[in-house]
Amino acid sequence: MKHSPFLVPTDGKPVKLSKYDPTFTGKYKNAEETSEKLQKGIAKVAKLQDILYAQNTYGLLIIIQAMDAAGKDSAVKHVFSGVNPQGCTVVNFKAPSALELDRDYLWRAHKDMPERGGIGIFNRSYYEEVLIARVHPKILENQQLPDEARHKHIWQDRFEQINAFEKHLVQNGILVLKFFLNVSKGEQKRRFLERIDNPDKNWKFALSDVEERGYWNDYQRAYEDVFTNTSTKFAPWYIIPADNKWFTRIVLNDVITDTLEKLKLHYPEISKEQRAALQEAKETLLKEKN
Amino acid sequence: MKHSPFLVPTDGKPVKLSKYDPTFTGKYKNAEETSEKLQKGIAKVAKLQDILYAQNTYGLLIIIQAMDAAGKDSAVKHVFSGVNPQGCTVVNFKAPSALELDRDYLWRAHKDMPERGGIGIFNRSYYEEVLIARVHPKILENQQLPDEARHKHIWQDRFEQINAFEKHLVQNGILVLKFFLNVSKGEQKRRFLERIDNPDKNWKFALSDVEERGYWNDYQRAYEDVFTNTSTKFAPWYIIPADNKWFTRIVLNDVITDTLEKLKLHYPEISKEQRAALQEAKETLLKEKN
Repeated sequence: MKHSPFLVPTDGKPVKLSKYDPTFTGKYKNAEETSEKLQKGIAKVAKLQDILYAQNTYGLLIIIQAMDAAGKDSAVKHVFSGVNPQGCTVVNFKAPSALELDRDYLWRAHKDMPERGGIGIFNRSYYEEVLIARVHPKILENQQLPDEARHKHIWQDRFEQINAFEKHLVQNGILVLKFFLNVSKGEQKRRFLERIDNPDKNWKFALSDVEERGYWNDYQRAYEDVFTNTSTKFAPWYIIPADNKWFTRIVLNDVITDTLEKLKLHYPEISKEQRAALQEAKETLLKEKN
Repeated sequence: MKHSPFLVPTDGKPVKLSKYDPTFTGKYKNAEETSEKLQKGIAKVAKLQDILYAQNTYGLLIIIQAMDAAGKDSAVKHVFSGVNPQGCTVVNFKAPSALELDRDYLWRAHKDMPERGGIGIFNRSYYEEVLIARVHPKILENQQLPDEARHKHIWQDRFEQINAFEKHLVQNGILVLKFFLNVSKGEQKRRFLERIDNPDKNWKFALSDVEERGYWNDYQRAYEDVFTNTSTKFAPWYIIPADNKWFTRIVLNDVITDTLEKLKLHYPEISKEQRAALQEAKETLLKEKN
């Protein structure tokens, strides 16, 4: 697998989002140029998923994080419509319920993990626990943590916990890919205004979205710290330009295809004994009277 | 909505499967004739699902039951690939785990119900509890039921319980559609032989499939009793010809499209107050310095 230019280095050096251009589109100029490529890419993922499902050995967890209106929902829709929903699950991480707050913060993520043979997409994820929970201290205060867990190194602790959790998943056959859809502040404003002006899109807009936008810089710092500390060889982060949705989709599809191809998936092979048993079943069928 | 010719009457009169022709394909002769219609139909379901999801009021539960090799998996793949997996879940009902056997038989179905705004597909379902559990008495024996539940009317009791459960779902906004893919015994044999002869399909074949085939008539009787007792106005059964997979898919898509269209779905409308708040948010955005 060639290294994607959007892969975040895993050397632990501080990541600066200012070095990642949200408007980058490589050699492409517009959606028309890439639509056929995307259709072919989706068909390829569908084919690979079929084998992944049959082989029933590996699973793939895809985490999508981003600021509001960066295109998470539409990326899921356009990159995964065409994939067999039997073997593909999408989980939306909303504010945790009372029942979830009574558990540790990875509990619900573990519960909703894709099964072996499946592709699971987390639309937001447990990374919110080192993002929104860091930008808004009230959220952490409301979590039922023991006092000894509340100290200034809590984020570093959580990065370690998350890395250990992801390593566990990968070592047990669940691959982990993490994508940050990198939208610019100007493009976010443009999309917010569109959601306000288009009645069919009003439902996607929450007044709190404008409020959250006020914390833009805090979120950027929190994300940088996440990338610096949790982009690992086993579970890398990709920072994907997101000012042009069509480009975001192409890159997502590329990385996912490359990752699945690297697994050298194959349909399950059967043993000599199983082959003999199949022949016996065949004879039974052929001998039937009707 | 026009009545589908495949709808099982809800008058409680005994259903005879011999009256339903598995080879029926209506006015169509082959897959080529219907492939464009199916593509358009899938696009229509995708569009309707988008509104269903936005409106977040109704959900749709689709139950697919059938004998082995009737085309359940491939129907799911071909009718629902193209639908946004965010808002579409597929649940495979395998033999219940020890944990599930410690609950009543509807527990796991309820847990995996589609959420409001979503489409949920059950590939097999709690109907196995009045099918395989009836054909194989051992299965019922192994369930942790109190003695007083073990009597000759248990199937009638379960039909009542299922009807009450489905009525509850429908009254709370979760629509229920139930499909039986009606494959003939001869076509099942042909497909089994294909699974044995094609190495890439071996994994789909279990030796126990031939054994189960030995209970063909028992299953047909059990299914007929299910249709007679649980095809209701609120949660009807459809018996769909399944000897030609392309025809099965067209009918599935038709019934689902009709059902969703009948709901008169619409994107959420906002109140005067919400509209005013949106305008305020708009002004805040436009006043920003950057």
